[in-house]
Amino acid sequence: MSEVRTLKVALLGCGNVGAQVARILIDDAEALAARSGARLELSGIAVRNVDTPRDVELPRELFTTDADTLVKDADLVIELMGGIEPARSLILTAIQNGACVVTGNKALLAQDGPTLYEEADKAGVQLSYEAAVAGAIPILRPIRDSLSGDRITRVLGIVNGTTNFILDQMDSTGAQFADALAEAQRLGYAEADPTADVEGHDAAAKAAILASLSFHTRFSLDDVYCEGITKVSAEDIASAKEAGFVIKLLAIAEKIDSSDLGSGISVRVHPTLLPREHPLAAVRGAFNAVFIEAENAGELMFYGQGAGGTPTASAVLGDLVSAARRLVLGGPGRTETTTGHVPALTIDASNTSYYIGLDVADQAGVLARIAHIFAENGVSIEIMRQTIHRDSASKVESAELKIVTHRASEAALAATVEAVKGLDVINSVTSVLRVEGV
Amino acid sequence: MSEVRTLKVALLGCGNVGAQVARILIDDAEALAARSGARLELSGIAVRNVDTPRDVELPRELFTTDADTLVKDADLVIELMGGIEPARSLILTAIQNGACVVTGNKALLAQDGPTLYEEADKAGVQLSYEAAVAGAIPILRPIRDSLSGDRITRVLGIVNGTTNFILDQMDSTGAQFADALAEAQRLGYAEADPTADVEGHDAAAKAAILASLSFHTRFSLDDVYCEGITKVSAEDIASAKEAGFVIKLLAIAEKIDSSDLGSGISVRVHPTLLPREHPLAAVRGAFNAVFIEAENAGELMFYGQGAGGTPTASAVLGDLVSAARRLVLGGPGRTETTTGHVPALTIDASNTSYYIGLDVADQAGVLARIAHIFAENGVSIEIMRQTIHRDSASKVESAELKIVTHRASEAALAATVEAVKGLDVINSVTSVLRVEGV
Repeated sequence: MSEVRTLKVALLGCGNVGAQVARILIDDAEALAARSGARLELSGIAVRNVDTPRDVELPRELFTTDADTLVKDADLVIELMGGIEPARSLILTAIQNGACVVTGNKALLAQDGPTLYEEADKAGVQLSYEAAVAGAIPILRPIRDSLSGDRITRVLGIVNGTTNFILDQMDSTGAQFADALAEAQRLGYAEADPTADVEGHDAAAKAAILASLSFHTRFSLDDVYCEGITKVSAEDIASAKEAGFVIKLLAIAEKIDSSDLGSGISVRVHPTLLPREHPLAAVRGAFNAVFIEAENAGELMFYGQGAGGTPTASAVLGDLVSAARRLVLGGPGRTETTTGHVPALTIDASNTSYYIGLDVADQAGVLARIAHIFAENGVSIEIMRQTIHRDSASKVESAELKIVTHRASEAALAATVEAVKGLDVINSVTSVLRVEGV
Repeated sequence: MSEVRTLKVALLGCGNVGAQVARILIDDAEALAARSGARLELSGIAVRNVDTPRDVELPRELFTTDADTLVKDADLVIELMGGIEPARSLILTAIQNGACVVTGNKALLAQDGPTLYEEADKAGVQLSYEAAVAGAIPILRPIRDSLSGDRITRVLGIVNGTTNFILDQMDSTGAQFADALAEAQRLGYAEADPTADVEGHDAAAKAAILASLSFHTRFSLDDVYCEGITKVSAEDIASAKEAGFVIKLLAIAEKIDSSDLGSGISVRVHPTLLPREHPLAAVRGAFNAVFIEAENAGELMFYGQGAGGTPTASAVLGDLVSAARRLVLGGPGRTETTTGHVPALTIDASNTSYYIGLDVADQAGVLARIAHIFAENGVSIEIMRQTIHRDSASKVESAELKIVTHRASEAALAATVEAVKGLDVINSVTSVLRVEGV
């Protein structure tokens, strides 16, 4: 190891993930050097306040508030500050100085990824961000490299551990959303302000990144339809469960090629029913998984821990070692392809099955009238099941109708639901949920 | 696309996978060119007999029996002939001529991989083989690149679809091995001579490759302990099922660091009990999956189709596009690291839980005598369950004892079983199986 080169690594941010990255860079220096072909020297850690207590004990002299100077002197820059600025400017400075950049900043990538990718391509440096989607799970590299000779047709991802934990709690205990959220907060799976998770914003940023890589076209957050889980009720979950489904918040990117709906990519995040036997249905608690359908490969699933300091640090270090190998061997930085020019479609172009729950009057002919409305709107019914609730004197108290449709467009479904609501025999529409995996 | 370079691709072999690779190279030429940055021209297909009928209609003029000439004129060589020779010599010729090589030849890699890797390193060309393990599932690249900053501690793989199909059939229908094998042969999941699959040889070759990449050390087939599924009985499976387990043929590579057993890597293939709630337990039919435990990333699983012409072609083409990108951008070929010097351990160093089924006499004190033998041999019992079978007159016909141990060494277990067999109260030892995932 006499002639081994040293590469300077600047770390920006020292939160949950950053602190673990720093620890591993120091503790595992020898193994990382062997794998990279270069000594990876942590040259400094830029933070807002040097005196903030950290999760991990780290040498005090590494800390600095001067991120600019640190970045300008680095071969490799790891950005784990989060947020748009100053992360964006610092990454651009690093790229312009010829440093390779590793980031986990999904919000920045979803908002301004295209600028960053172009700058990195121009400078011939590598910009990698495996940690931005599904934490420890190697998913971006397999999509970009391993599937580069195939055509991905659909990606379904459980990419937010907080919402998966909440939905899983609701499913297993029958809890309402608010109670499951409180439990998640108590256990540290949800933040005090859970908006970004429960409204689906975090998943939407990841959906934009997954769609961009899967379809070789750059999609931003604006292209993603987003609906969170705050309106999912214990009754929705119980009713789905009875019908053999589980409700998951899915990030979906799929190729649509239809004469009515248009051709392009539908990118969306919404609560979705999955049959209990679907591989994604078994993803419990705070775990993440991404299910990919490709023309040749068929169905693939990638499963693992989606968050947490140490697991996410694993993804960051994988990117770092790969970038270091490239630098040592003198290879090119550019490995992304964005040769596609497919448009992003709105939610109206999505074409899925729907699950509809109705509270109806028990009158002769109700089923026929409802079925007629579905047919008129071009929505084909796959399963219709009526449950009658009677009181102790066997008089009908209410009737519940559950319908699973064949694939239909969002617009046709919306028109159907509107028309059904207008029927005098309908007391209420209790659920309208999308179904995948059937 | 005016100045696009053309890379000549030689295909060696045109079986199930090769024919699909050729079809995709021709049909998807435009997309592959966009992703590679070069036109990938299929310059020829070397076969033993030009007139053999193929699964796919391909231009007759592409076929040749002169593999040598074809290879010498290629930029990229895809080897899908299988077997040791002439595959080995042709790959070496390709490497020495500066061509990048993509192969799916697990037998060759497991037997003589080190020579091939070294020659490729020397020549600065890329040798990739994603298709050799778990067909369509991107598993080698994630291990090599994405987990390069982590330390893998254990790999458990269902890497042979034939045996998984057979065990799954036995589990769901109660069939004996011979009947499930016949069904697999009827459906095309098993070959007329199923030896390589059912004796575990195919899985052992894949275990050697997985172990080499996971532990940065070159292991060959000789380092792998191998036990197939021919001795697994319907009774073993029923008994395991009753206890909450499923039996899978696992390829296992794990780090052992023990004062008694030694330090190194245990690489082995054998029928293994897994708890029904383990993610690998849900891998049904001919699907494959690889479960990885890493120090930082935690638990990861990769799931998909392990065989079949089209799925495996996806893996071959992913490697081909990646190699082409490297050639176009002028990067280095070498991306593998074998910096480790850890020894392969024999099966005696493995340290797992065991499941033992005993047919015992129903006498007072039997349990105590058996427990005493386990304790004497240093094998700790986790669960012991006795089931008494009585005839119609309520007389005891037989008693069945099921024992799950804590982790113990192979040697301690073997000594325990020998000593138990010597007891006069033991009618027979009905099962001795290893358990993982508890």
